[in-house]
Parts: sequence; structure tokens; C-alpha cells
Amino acid sequence: MCGIFGITGHPEAANIAYLGLHALQHRGQESAGIVSSDAGKLHPHRGMGLVTDVFDSGAMARLPGRAAIGHVRYSTAGSSDIRHAQPFSVQYAHGAIAVAHNGNLVNADALRTRLETAGSIFQSTSDTESIIHLLAHSREKDTVDRLTSSLRQLEGAFSLLFLTETKLVAVRDPHGFRPLALGRLKDAFVLASETCAFDLIEAEFIRDLDPGEIVVVDSSGMRSYYPFSGDNVPKRFCVFEHVYFARPDSRVDGQSVYRVRERMGRILAKEHPVDADVVVPVPDSGIAAAIGYARESGIPYDMGLIRSHYVGRTFIEPQQSIRHFGVKLKLNAVREVLEGKRVVVLDDSVVRGTTSRKIVKMIRAAGAREVHVRISSPPSTHPCFYGIDTPTRSELIASSHSVDEIARYLTCDTLGYLSEKGLMAAVSAPESREGYCAACFTGQYPVPFGSASGGKLIRLHADRTERLE
Amino acid sequence: MCGIFGITGHPEAANIAYLGLHALQHRGQESAGIVSSDAGKLHPHRGMGLVTDVFDSGAMARLPGRAAIGHVRYSTAGSSDIRHAQPFSVQYAHGAIAVAHNGNLVNADALRTRLETAGSIFQSTSDTESIIHLLAHSREKDTVDRLTSSLRQLEGAFSLLFLTETKLVAVRDPHGFRPLALGRLKDAFVLASETCAFDLIEAEFIRDLDPGEIVVVDSSGMRSYYPFSGDNVPKRFCVFEHVYFARPDSRVDGQSVYRVRERMGRILAKEHPVDADVVVPVPDSGIAAAIGYARESGIPYDMGLIRSHYVGRTFIEPQQSIRHFGVKLKLNAVREVLEGKRVVVLDDSVVRGTTSRKIVKMIRAAGAREVHVRISSPPSTHPCFYGIDTPTRSELIASSHSVDEIARYLTCDTLGYLSEKGLMAAVSAPESREGYCAACFTGQYPVPFGSASGGKLIRLHADRTERLE
Amino acid sequence: MCGIFGITGHPEAANIAYLGLHALQHRGQESAGIVSSDAGKLHPHRGMGLVTDVFDSGAMARLPGRAAIGHVRYSTAGSSDIRHAQPFSVQYAHGAIAVAHNGNLVNADALRTRLETAGSIFQSTSDTESIIHLLAHSREKDTVDRLTSSLRQLEGAFSLLFLTETKLVAVRDPHGFRPLALGRLKDAFVLASETCAFDLIEAEFIRDLDPGEIVVVDSSGMRSYYPFSGDNVPKRFCVFEHVYFARPDSRVDGQSVYRVRERMGRILAKEHPVDADVVVPVPDSGIAAAIGYARESGIPYDMGLIRSHYVGRTFIEPQQSIRHFGVKLKLNAVREVLEGKRVVVLDDSVVRGTTSRKIVKMIRAAGAREVHVRISSPPSTHPCFYGIDTPTRSELIASSHSVDEIARYLTCDTLGYLSEKGLMAAVSAPESREGYCAACFTGQYPVPFGSASGGKLIRLHADRTERLE
Amino acid sequence: MCGIFGITGHPEAANIAYLGLHALQHRGQESAGIVSSDAGKLHPHRGMGLVTDVFDSGAMARLPGRAAIGHVRYSTAGSSDIRHAQPFSVQYAHGAIAVAHNGNLVNADALRTRLETAGSIFQSTSDTESIIHLLAHSREKDTVDRLTSSLRQLEGAFSLLFLTETKLVAVRDPHGFRPLALGRLKDAFVLASETCAFDLIEAEFIRDLDPGEIVVVDSSGMRSYYPFSGDNVPKRFCVFEHVYFARPDSRVDGQSVYRVRERMGRILAKEHPVDADVVVPVPDSGIAAAIGYARESGIPYDMGLIRSHYVGRTFIEPQQSIRHFGVKLKLNAVREVLEGKRVVVLDDSVVRGTTSRKIVKMIRAAGAREVHVRISSPPSTHPCFYGIDTPTRSELIASSHSVDEIARYLTCDTLGYLSEKGLMAAVSAPESREGYCAACFTGQYPVPFGSASGGKLIRLHADRTERLE
Repeated sequence: MCGIFGITGHPEAANIAYLGLHALQHRGQESAGIVSSDAGKLHPHRGMGLVTDVFDSGAMARLPGRAAIGHVRYSTAGSSDIRHAQPFSVQYAHGAIAVAHNGNLVNADALRTRLETAGSIFQSTSDTESIIHLLAHSREKDTVDRLTSSLRQLEGAFSLLFLTETKLVAVRDPHGFRPLALGRLKDAFVLASETCAFDLIEAEFIRDLDPGEIVVVDSSGMRSYYPFSGDNVPKRFCVFEHVYFARPDSRVDGQSVYRVRERMGRILAKEHPVDADVVVPVPDSGIAAAIGYARESGIPYDMGLIRSHYVGRTFIEPQQSIRHFGVKLKLNAVREVLEGKRVVVLDDSVVRGTTSRKIVKMIRAAGAREVHVRISSPPSTHPCFYGIDTPTRSELIASSHSVDEIARYLTCDTLGYLSEKGLMAAVSAPESREGYCAACFTGQYPVPFGSASGGKLIRLHADRTERLE
Repeated sequence: MCGIFGITGHPEAANIAYLGLHALQHRGQESAGIVSSDAGKLHPHRGMGLVTDVFDSGAMARLPGRAAIGHVRYSTAGSSDIRHAQPFSVQYAHGAIAVAHNGNLVNADALRTRLETAGSIFQSTSDTESIIHLLAHSREKDTVDRLTSSLRQLEGAFSLLFLTETKLVAVRDPHGFRPLALGRLKDAFVLASETCAFDLIEAEFIRDLDPGEIVVVDSSGMRSYYPFSGDNVPKRFCVFEHVYFARPDSRVDGQSVYRVRERMGRILAKEHPVDADVVVPVPDSGIAAAIGYARESGIPYDMGLIRSHYVGRTFIEPQQSIRHFGVKLKLNAVREVLEGKRVVVLDDSVVRGTTSRKIVKMIRAAGAREVHVRISSPPSTHPCFYGIDTPTRSELIASSHSVDEIARYLTCDTLGYLSEKGLMAAVSAPESREGYCAACFTGQYPVPFGSASGGKLIRLHADRTERLE
Repeated sequence: MCGIFGITGHPEAANIAYLGLHALQHRGQESAGIVSSDAGKLHPHRGMGLVTDVFDSGAMARLPGRAAIGHVRYSTAGSSDIRHAQPFSVQYAHGAIAVAHNGNLVNADALRTRLETAGSIFQSTSDTESIIHLLAHSREKDTVDRLTSSLRQLEGAFSLLFLTETKLVAVRDPHGFRPLALGRLKDAFVLASETCAFDLIEAEFIRDLDPGEIVVVDSSGMRSYYPFSGDNVPKRFCVFEHVYFARPDSRVDGQSVYRVRERMGRILAKEHPVDADVVVPVPDSGIAAAIGYARESGIPYDMGLIRSHYVGRTFIEPQQSIRHFGVKLKLNAVREVLEGKRVVVLDDSVVRGTTSRKIVKMIRAAGAREVHVRISSPPSTHPCFYGIDTPTRSELIASSHSVDEIARYLTCDTLGYLSEKGLMAAVSAPESREGYCAACFTGQYPVPFGSASGGKLIRLHADRTERLE
Repeated sequence: MCGIFGITGHPEAANIAYLGLHALQHRGQESAGIVSSDAGKLHPHRGMGLVTDVFDSGAMARLPGRAAIGHVRYSTAGSSDIRHAQPFSVQYAHGAIAVAHNGNLVNADALRTRLETAGSIFQSTSDTESIIHLLAHSREKDTVDRLTSSLRQLEGAFSLLFLTETKLVAVRDPHGFRPLALGRLKDAFVLASETCAFDLIEAEFIRDLDPGEIVVVDSSGMRSYYPFSGDNVPKRFCVFEHVYFARPDSRVDGQSVYRVRERMGRILAKEHPVDADVVVPVPDSGIAAAIGYARESGIPYDMGLIRSHYVGRTFIEPQQSIRHFGVKLKLNAVREVLEGKRVVVLDDSVVRGTTSRKIVKMIRAAGAREVHVRISSPPSTHPCFYGIDTPTRSELIASSHSVDEIARYLTCDTLGYLSEKGLMAAVSAPESREGYCAACFTGQYPVPFGSASGGKLIRLHADRTERLE
């Protein structure tokens, strides 16, 4: 998972990009980078860690110019490497170019093999590098033609920002898997994965990019291209952005994330009612759904779990083990809220089940009489191949266990998942799945992928696992 | 403000102290330190920054032994200096000793002058150093006698942990200004400013230390001393711990912080009712009071303000100013919750008023029709001299402005503070102020202080200011 | 200027490479890197700074395997960038490959333009990256054929080490501009820019690589190829390696550097005798020549200038200027050796003249009666295009001033340069310049270069300037 | 061993102190510190490592004022700790004071015990802290009286610089063990352990401080006090400063170090002549003596051993051991100089013998026919208690072995030490040992010490060992 941000036409482009990335930090904490464009030259700075760690005043001073793109990246531990930090920037026949990518290509291996055969050398294992190689091999004269012919070879999910010496280009793949919003800050155009970035910098949200749209901003203004419009590719926005990934104060794909989550909670309350004394969220991702559940059910809402603000990334764990140590560093139960109560606990999803089980036990240890787990999405049964880093299918507890079996594993009294129909109702598409990718719940992948990629990409929600477990 | 933690009788004493400090991190983010005791020697490690920054595996490996004390420290920017990081440790006539201090002495200057005249040299400007000098000058043979004679010369607030080659000693001043809890972890005794530290390490809470109590733990077990019992000093626990400082999942001074805050909200709803559509907390400190207010008033609770998890400490602010920049880095409004609504916003206190004003404006900008500010404590009119770092009196808006004037400054429709009587009712002392120090609201200081200290110490809630504004 | 080191067939390959680079540190202090090969994978580590700064035990632990190549790099301040740190490593059609390069290509720009037109993307501005692109575009099946066809397109100076998953390949360009020595350490083969690296690791020197030789070491042993043997390219070893660059305890190109320098001093004494009381070297590069001059002339040798061991790279210069500050940080005069004396001071070359002038003044300030400067090489009149970083021609004092004019600028009593003939005699090629490149003294460049490169590469001895001035 | 530097009356006091410490870096590489005085306040900065590592532009900017003192410190590995970094600075009854100390007190333990009994607390184990405690306990009104009464209680070696808000005070102990020179830089007074510091900053050397002299510089000028003049304490300047410790370009105690060393070599040539082909120094400390030996004997001088400039402090040693690894990192033999020769190798002293043995073997491995070791000082038989960090007596090879036995251990053909008489002749005191401490060679300690200190302080020349072996 990643976040991207772009701006052009602003005297403090890099500073604004820094703030935009700060607002998108939840989309990736492993590395951060900004490339600015000034006087016909690109200026890169990338580093491992949080935005506030990677950039200091010295680094910012070396990012001059009126245009910049930025990237925050999450990745699995194994491939943690500065070489994968984006934006990726190179020289090629048409000058300097940088790219920031949110999404995942399903034909990355095939592309790479083809490009290497044609003489390309690769410095990273990221699929993003292939995109630049395709551009470099394109024979088209015009930038947009070059882009179109290159993008046509990509399969999978890609929201992209390109920066050259003279242009900022934004692209959203024809399915529209990943979000990308367009905004305005005085005379400058801004682009961001989520609108919360616009709120921080006081930019005005204009609209989401359309699936398959290419937006080019240069000195002659902004133009839009729809090179894939004849392909009749259906829109497939990632429903998991609403379930978990996006910030609740963002709008993505035309919807308030907070309101969608609250609706999930309300529908869940209808689908899985229970006699109880208190509704408690797993903070922060379960809060909006818990408020919805509480309102619909009439059961009082309360904060029975407190989240620590100081969860760093390295801990010194005592050898003499502490039960549920990882969860305890992040969450603590409030005994006074839970003791003697029948508790409904709201969470957004269950991945491996280990964290949920610890939370149930923590709530019981605080004296709860009953624990009823409610999940504001359907069972997670399939890995994602379009940009959300998730465990393999075999690690997903719901891929091989029934809801009853999961409930027994979690040691809860009852367990209720939001239905697929309920999920679609919550995202305002009540009659059909039209418009959304819900493959992680249904296994119906909008873009097929070869067997080669299967082994590599099967990881689902691992970021979430790390962040919660 | 500071947090302290101690443990003795545990094979991984320093590791447990590390976790304890992690849980107390909200009490001080400027510096952290641990001193362990092993084989008749003290081993110190201190550094600037968060617990996770200060300690790595190398540092932990250099902290052997079965006993340790730790400290997290908050301080004003001016005196940020590694020399003030605690625990403070020295050699003196009776061997090695380390001390960790939460609180503030009001006779620090007088003590220092007296000690310097007697030949003492000082390496820091901290009042804690004086405590060790008093011990070093004591002629008493016995450790407890030496402590008693030294502590008798201190005026003000002090919860203290001492570590020697053979003993762990815990002290709470006769007024009991600052909290200190005693617990048990298997065969080990543990001490912590708040019980949330016990939850993380799975220690069992035994009881709070009594005001004026000295607890000594060594190889012959634990003993309690009450050397000040004849002095008839009234208990004066800091009520601001309940209002803002302590974590909601802690119990301090025998009360659940969360429940006290919820009661504050309920009483506030009775004292300052209003016709409104939604109750919104300023996260996280306003949450429990907002829930209380919502329940008592019947107005729905909702999360109209979202708090960022990634608020680092250094920002690169754009020169082209962004309105309410500081607040925006921490908080963002959810338009869908606030638009067209009459909003009650709950916060714990108003210091300078600048942050509250920005929050009101942010809520209005998100489309709220009315904004009603409710504060779960009385107007903050006086600085604290007992360990909470606060602005001078002249900076406290409530020291020179009426509630109406403050409301106008905040640009809110109505403003309601919890009454002093309501505050006392919330902390379960309905008929009197007996047992609490509420000097920051009343100006009635339990311990007098000389004019000399006035100029130096007059700072109230500055930590909070920094953390919120 | 750079230093390269390679080893294959040793259980501690990276550790040995680390030591080898340590011994070659004088050839480049800006960045250092090692790539090791283990289990069909390459493991890179690169960083800015000295070898001891770049590598710690953690970094070394991540460099497993029985083969490794390493690189130390010097460069002009402007292009100081981690992206230029070598070895350069990539994936391409034939797997993973890393390269370490000592030298400079004169057709770098033309190569780059051609490669970009063919679709190559570049991540650095270094000419080394082109070498890998050529390999990637080669259609040859066999590794050596691929190498040969690629190397054939290079013009200029290149001593190269390549590392793949299975092979270590060493190359020296047909002119043999830069040194490269082959050695043996038990069962392992080692390669290094200078033999001083073999001395440290106790490897046995076997021989220098021949100009135009390709050496391949893999599991089936070591093989040598001479693909350029039909081209009749004359050998042109860089004479400046002997004058200044190589360590005196090294043998390069079959000669003891120390003995060559001593001979330069002896011949200089014959060419430019003078009545004097003491011969003093500019340490350390002038020592061997000074000893030679002293022996030949019979004038006593003495250490009138002391060099500091602690010359770091950043200084805080007082605003109130100190005369000859830069030189003083490095050198100090010994008054007792110089006072009242007629002093012959030996240095290896004069670049801009500013440093030499300061040294003359420092010697006079210490009481010398006369100062006679003797330079153990001819006047430096032309920039180097083959890998030694040097100032532009206009900055070289000897390019536009006669010896008399230079002497006046230096404020010395007499100035004598070694003649070209003397230089050639010292390197044992008395009758001709056969076998050496002395273009920096003669302007007779063995490899022509286009006008395009002229502007870019004209820098001569800048490293030296930085190190001495 | 340590170096100290002070300046007062200069607008860039800290910058000049930084340069002074840079020139004194050879006297201590473990930590460095500067305290400046400005506007009635002292400003300290201390850190571990070299001067160039400890101070950057930010640190320098925090050292305002027209007066400053600085310190570089060497110490044994065991006590490496930032708490021991000097200058030591505190507040006491008379305000702020800082001290920088070169030397060693032999009554440190007794002082400490007495002070602790009187109520002093200690933050370090350094004997310097005691000096400040004595000052703090003094009842004298006047600064010089307070100093005199405190210094009178010290036994051992101490060259001291004190800095207060208004004064710079310099002290040399009555024996004058350690050097301290006074100079002038325009209107400013400067003080330094060695005159090489004056050369760098272009200060004029005025004179050495007299043994027992106290120099006070404040706004009313410079005054000298001789409070110990009635004690008839004989001067005992450390002869080892001349043998090894001081820089050859310094004058200490009225002598050119370089000339003294050259005389040592000349006398050694008369005392231990040998038929040989070449005289080779162990660089850099053996150079001047080798030149002297060569001149006196008529045997040619040559640089058969080359010293690396890049000896950092941490190495990654290969597990597969390299013979004489430590020495090889620092020194390499030049085969062409040594092969087939009868070699005289000059070194300043032999400590444990291990390094010398490795050098002998390295010279033989380079082909020398005979190796004759000549040492420009007498056998090192006794530890130093006055500030030079040395191994215990049992580690000194000469304390328990005859010269013949040592020669056999070193595997040299002959071994010759300078005689005590020769040493005294070299330092220009031919008829007697009057004026020098040569206890490390003779065991005749000028200041007696208790048995208690014996165990602690017995370390001789360990710094040297580390630097050479």
C-alpha cells in the first residue's frame, strides 16, 4: 500500500508535498520520498522511515522548484530496502523523469522478462521500474502517446504521478482500483491519494480522477485524456479502502469514508443484533462502525479499549513472556467500562485471527460477562493482487474456517460478519457489486493473473496485521 | 510533568522498566532514563527523546541486575538538556545512589543556596539534585533516618524513587500531590506513576502509596514508614491528573480516570445544557467527557474530529502560511458529521485559548451551524507550582477574561465550564474540596512559596499546549 | 580517482575486501562499497565516507559469500551523491551483475546518447552505468563474448571488476592506463589496484594484469583472454601514479613506487643542483624524492615540515582569518631545522601554485635564509581525461606561466622541475616515452576525445589539491 | 594523557579553542570539550571522539563569548564514558566554574573519601572532580586564596585551566610534571599544553608557566602568583614528553622536541654503533632519532616502513587470522628499501614488546639480512602515576627481562637502548637528572603514593600501545 501526492505551480512545491505526505502517512510508513523539478532538473530525496524522519530542513532546502511529487511506501519486511523507496527517478532519451506509484501490476514478471530480453537493466525488484522502462522503449514522439502506449501494456492497479522537467502527469488505471483526487491550491494543481491531504494544506477538492484518465499539467494549463475509453473496462474501486485503509476524514471515490463505515455498523446491527450492555470499538479503525452499530441497536457506545499514541516500531520484549504482549503495547482495556458487561466489540476485519483472539481475551480479563465480536466487512478469504499487502490465502483464517470455527478460535460468545450485500449497501451500490473490487472477500478478481505471479504476490493485509497485532 | 517507574526482585528488571516507561510515555517525551543495580554497582542510561529512541538492544544489555528505576521527563524548551535527564545518579559517602523525581519543590532556590554555602557543587539546574545533596550532608547512620531528615527539608510535590546497591525506596510527599502506585509482578515489587504501566507488564495493582509514606524494598522484604504522620498534613492530590494528565485506562488515587471524566461530562451536561444535534470530543482527552455529556443530554455522540497518529515533533512549516496549521497537523474535521449541525464540542481545558479558537473555526469551516464549547474543568486561572509545567498567569486567558469574553474570543455560540463544585462531585468529593489540590482553578495553594520562586516557576499546562496547539 | 578490489574463493570474502579497500583508501575517500555474491544472489552495501565509516559489523554481516568486489571513490564536490557510489549492481537478462570501475571513459557522452536512444534509462551520471547497459544490450550468448563486444565500444581508461552470481571478472583496458594486480590468498584469487592491499591481507602478488587482458575466475578456475591483442594498441600506463597517486609501498606496473620516486629525486639533483644546507620533503608524497635528492647531492636530509595525523574533512575556520590556514592544519614547520638555513624543499608537483606558495612562506617564516623548490615531475600543463580528477587547464599555473614566473609567484629563490626525459629515466624507460601516458605534462593524449567531452572532463589533480591545499 | 587549551580576550574564543584542541589532538582522542564564558554564564559542549567529530557548526554557535577553555582526553577503554569528558563544569557557592586538567593526582582516593565524608557527591570517577569539591569547601574569600588552599591538598601532576564568569586561571603543579605554555594572540592571552597549538592559530609563544605558578587573567590584565615558592619543591618535568608524547614541532619546557629526539639518536649511535646498510625509523615517532642516528653513524637513512594515514578506530578483523594484523593496518614495509640489507630500525620505546616483535618480523619478511633495533630511551621498567596511561609493571617487558632476553623475544640481531645518562644528555642536563622525572625508566618517583593507589594507576604507555600495536 502506498500514498502519492503531486503539486505543480506553487512556489513552495516541496514543502506542500511534505505536508501532503504527512497527511497520507497512514498509507505507508516504511519509506518516503519527494522529487522536485526546478530549472530543467529533477531533485530527489528519499529515505527509510516516516516523513518526519526522512526530511529535515537541509533535505528540504535541496528540493527547489514549483513542482514536486511525493510517495510514502509500505512494504513487507523482506524487501525493506532504500532502492525501493519512491519516487523512482531516472534519465532517459527524453530527459529526466520521476514516477510515484500506488498499486500493483499483475503482469510485472512478464513485463520484466520482456524488458530484460530487450536489454533493460533493473536496479530494484519493484514493478514500478518496469513502467519507466516501457516509456524509455516507446518510439512515440508525443509524451501522452508514449504514456498511452506504455500504460496499455500494464495489467493491474496503478494510480501514478509522473514528473518531468516541464510536466506533471497523473494517471488512474482503467479499473480505477486505487483512489486519486484532484484539487486546487490557489494557482497550483494538487493530486493526492486521499482528500485528507487537501484539508491539511487548505486545497480545494475538485474531483476524483476518472478511471482510465490521464491528466497533464504544464505551463499551458491542465488537459485530460481518456485513451482507454473505447476499451469498456468496468470500474472496480477497491472496497477495502472504505473498510479499513483510507482515513475516516477522507472522501475516496466520491464517498465519505466515515459515513460509509457508520453505515456498515448500522447494517451490521440489523444483520447481527444481540442483547448487550455496551458497544466498544477497536480503536481507531472500528470507531465509526461502532457508532453506527450503537445508534442502530440503541446499545450505549463506550471506549472500553484505549489506544496508545506512542507505538514505535522497535520494542524490547522481555524474555519472560507477557501474554498478548504485542496487542498490549497498542491497546489497553478500561475495566470500569467492561466489568460485568455484555460487550459488543466492533472491528473492521479479521485476518489471521490472532489479534482478534487477544482482544477478546483482554476484554474478558477486564471482567466482561459476554463478548460479541462484530466485523464490519465479510470474511477475508482471498489475497489482494492490486496493491494491498496481505498474507497468503492459507494464512487467512476465513479461507479455511467457517464463521463458527472462527468464533470458537476467537473465544467469543458470538461472531457476526457484515454480508457482501450489506457491504455493497453501505458503499451505496445496493443492487449489485457494480463498480467495486471486493475480490478479497469474494475471490472474483477483475483482472486475471498468470500462475507465475501467484506465488509472489499472495499476501493480504499484512500491513494491517503489523499495525494491529 | 514526569513519569517514574521502579522494580526490584526481577531477573529482567531493566526490560520491565523499559515497558513501564513506555506505558508512562504520555507523562514526558523529552528525555528518558533507566538506572539498574547489579552486583553492588549502578548502571545508568539516559538520553533525549522517546523511550523507544533512547533505548536500543545495546543500551539494554548494559543495564544488568534485578532492580531498576526509570524516568520520563517533560520540560520547557529552554531547559532541554541531557544534564536534566533522570534518573540522577551519583557516588556519595554511603555508596552509589540514583533518584527519579516526579513533582516540583517550591523551596528549591533556598535549598540550593544553603547547600552551595555548605560546599555543594551542582551540575544541573534541577531541584532533584538538591535532594541528593541533602542526603549526602545528613549525619544519620540509618538509610530511612537519612531520608526522613532530608525529605523533611523539602517543600512542594515529590513522588520519588531511590535506587542504591541494595535497596529500592519509594516516597510520596505528605500532601500526596503526585500519584504513585505499588504493585506486584510475581516475586517482584513494582512502582509506577499510573496503573496503566502495571497493565502492560501484567503486574497486579496492590494499592496507592499513602501521602507521606516511605516504602523500602530490599533482600529482607518490603517495609513501610510514615515519618510525617504526626505532622497532620492534609492530603492534596492534583485534580488535574484526572482532568487531563493521566491516561484514561489508569486508576490514580483510587479512582478510574475514565469514569471520573465521564462523570465530569455528565455533570457538565446538567450545568450547561444546550439544544444541539451532535456531541463531538476533541480527541483524545475529551472523549470520555463527551460520552458522559452525550449520555446525560441524550444528544448523539459522534467523532467529528479525527486525530492523526503521526504527529512528530519537528515540522517544516510552509512560509506561505496555512490557517490553523498546528492544529491541522493534529486534528481534521469530518465534514459529513458536522455539516449543518448544531455541535457541542467537548474539551478538557482552555489554556491560552488559541487552540480552542482554531478548533471552533475548523468546525465552523466544516459547515457546523452552531458551535457550543463545553470544558470539563473550571477556568484555568492560576499556574501550578507542584510539577505541571504551565504558562504564566498572564498567558492564561481565564486569569484576565470573563467566560463571556472568552466565548467571544473563541467565536463559539456558547461556552460552558464545569463548576468547581461539579469538578469535586466528579472526583467523588461532593461536599468539599477535601483531599484535592485544585490551585490551578482556585489559586488556593496548599503549600506557600516565596516570591523568589514566583518568577521562575509560573508556567501552567505548557506541555499540553504544545501537544494540542 | 578510485581504488578497486576483488576476491573469490574465500570464506570471508567481504571481510577481506573490507581490508583491501582500507589499504586502498588513499585512492578515494568520498564513498566506499562492497558487493558480495552468495547462493546465487548479490548483496550490496555502499555509503558515503571512509571505509571505516561505511561498514560496521551489521553491514558486514549482510555481505555473505565466498566472492566480493569493492570500490573506493574520489570525486569532485559537485557530484557527491550516494547514487555514484560503487560497485554499481543491477539485474539484467543474464541475472545479477555488479561492477567496480577505476578510470574514465572519454566517449561517455556519445555512449549515453546512443544507449538512451535505444531505450536505456540512467540512474546516475557516472560513465560506469553505460558499461552495464552495453552488456545488457549485447546479443552474445557467452559471457566473455558479451564482455568483449561491450568493452570494444569503450574509449578511455578502465580497470574493471565484475561480479556475477558465479563469476569474478577482471579487465584492464588495452592501453593499460590504470593499474590492476592479481594475487593469491591461499585458495582464493585476489585483485587490487595496488599491491599494498595484498601486503595487508598477506596475499601473494602474482603479476599485473596485462593491458587488454580479461581474467575470469569461477568454479572451474582462472582463465585469461586477450580479445584486443590484434589491435596493436600501445601500452600507456599513467606516469602520475608513480609521481603522486600510488602508495610508496606499492608496486605498480612492475615498479616499486618508492624506488621510482627516489630516482626522480636523484635525477632532479643532477638536473637542478643547488648549494644548500638541508633537504626537506613536503610530507608524505615528497619524502622518497627528497631522500633521493639528499643522497645524490650530499646535502643532509631533515624533517623540517611535520604533517598532522588528524586532518579531518570539516573545519570551523575562524572569521578573523589566519594566514595559510588550510596548509597549517596539515603542515607545521620545525623552526630548529630551518632557521638560518638554505633549504631545498621537495614536492611532487605544483597544481595551482597556491599551496606551494604557502609552504614557501611557512618555511621562510620559520627562519630559512633561502628556499629552493624542487618538483619531482615536469610542469603540470594539461588536464587528465583518464580518471584523475584535475582542475581545468586554465587553473594549472604551468599551463600559462613560465618556470621563472612560477618561481616569482611561489616567492622561492630557485625553482626546478624534473625534465620529461628525467621523468622517463626515473620510470626506467630512458630512451622514449614508450609505455607511459604523460599527457598531463605533455598534452600528448593517447586516446583522442571529442569536443563534447572537453568541457566536462577538464579537471586535473583536484583530489590532490584538496588533500594538500 | 590529555591536552588543554585556554584563551581569553578574543571575539572568537571558542573557534580558536577548537583549533588549539585540533593541534593538541595527539594528546587525547577519546573525548573533547570546550566551555566558553559569555555574559556571566558558562556554555559547555563535550562529546566522545575526535575534535572534528565532537564539534560542528551548531555546537560552535552555542559557545559564545570572549573566553574559553578546552580539553582533549585519552583514557583506558574501561572508563570510556561521556561523564569523564572535560572540561568539567558546575555551579557552586561562588558561581559557575569549569576546569580542564592534564595530569594525575596520586592522592585521589584519599581526597575522595575525605570529601564524601564531608557530604560531597560525585558524578564521575575522575580525580578532577575532587579539585572542584575542594574549591567548593574552601572558606577563603579570595579566588587565589581559595585556589591556593585547595591546590595545596593535591599531590601529583596537574596542569590546570579554570574558567569562571570573569576569570581564566592557569596552574602548573610545583614539580612542573606536565607542560603548559603561555602565549599571546593580538590582545588575547592563550595557554596550551604544547606550542604547536600556538603555531596553528598564529599566536606568539611568550614562555612556559613556571612550576607552581598560578596565572590569573581577567579584565584588569594578567597576574602571576607563586604560592608554593617557599616549599622548595624540585622541578620534575616528564622526560617522556620528549621521548614520545609531544609533537616534534613543539617546544616543551624550553626545548625543541625535534632537536632533543635527534640528539637521542646521535647519542644512541655512539652508545650502540653497528655495521649496517640502512637506518629506518618506525614512523612517525622514531623519525627524528633515526635521522640523528644516521647522521652520527654515517649510515644512509631511508623510509623502509610506511605509515597509513587512514587508521580509524574500529576494524573488522577477519576470523581467519592475519599475522601481525594490528601492526599491518598501520605500517607496511617497503621491500625495495629493506631487501638484502642490514637494517637499523629506530623506535622511541618498547612497552610490552609485542609490537616491536611484529615490526622486526615484518622487516625480516621484506628480506632484511640483519635487523638491529635501537631504542631512543632507556628500558621502560616502571608505570607512570602522573598522567601517562601505561600498563602495569608486570606487562612492561623490561621490568622482568634483561636486554638480551628482550632481544631474543623481539627476534632481532642486536638491541640497544639509550642509557639514562644519554637520555639526560639529550635533554641538555648532562651532569644530573636534576629537573626531570624519569621514573618510568628509573623507578625513582618524585612524589610518593599510597599502596591504595598502586593497584589502580599502574598503567604505562597504554595509549601508545593502542596507537601502535
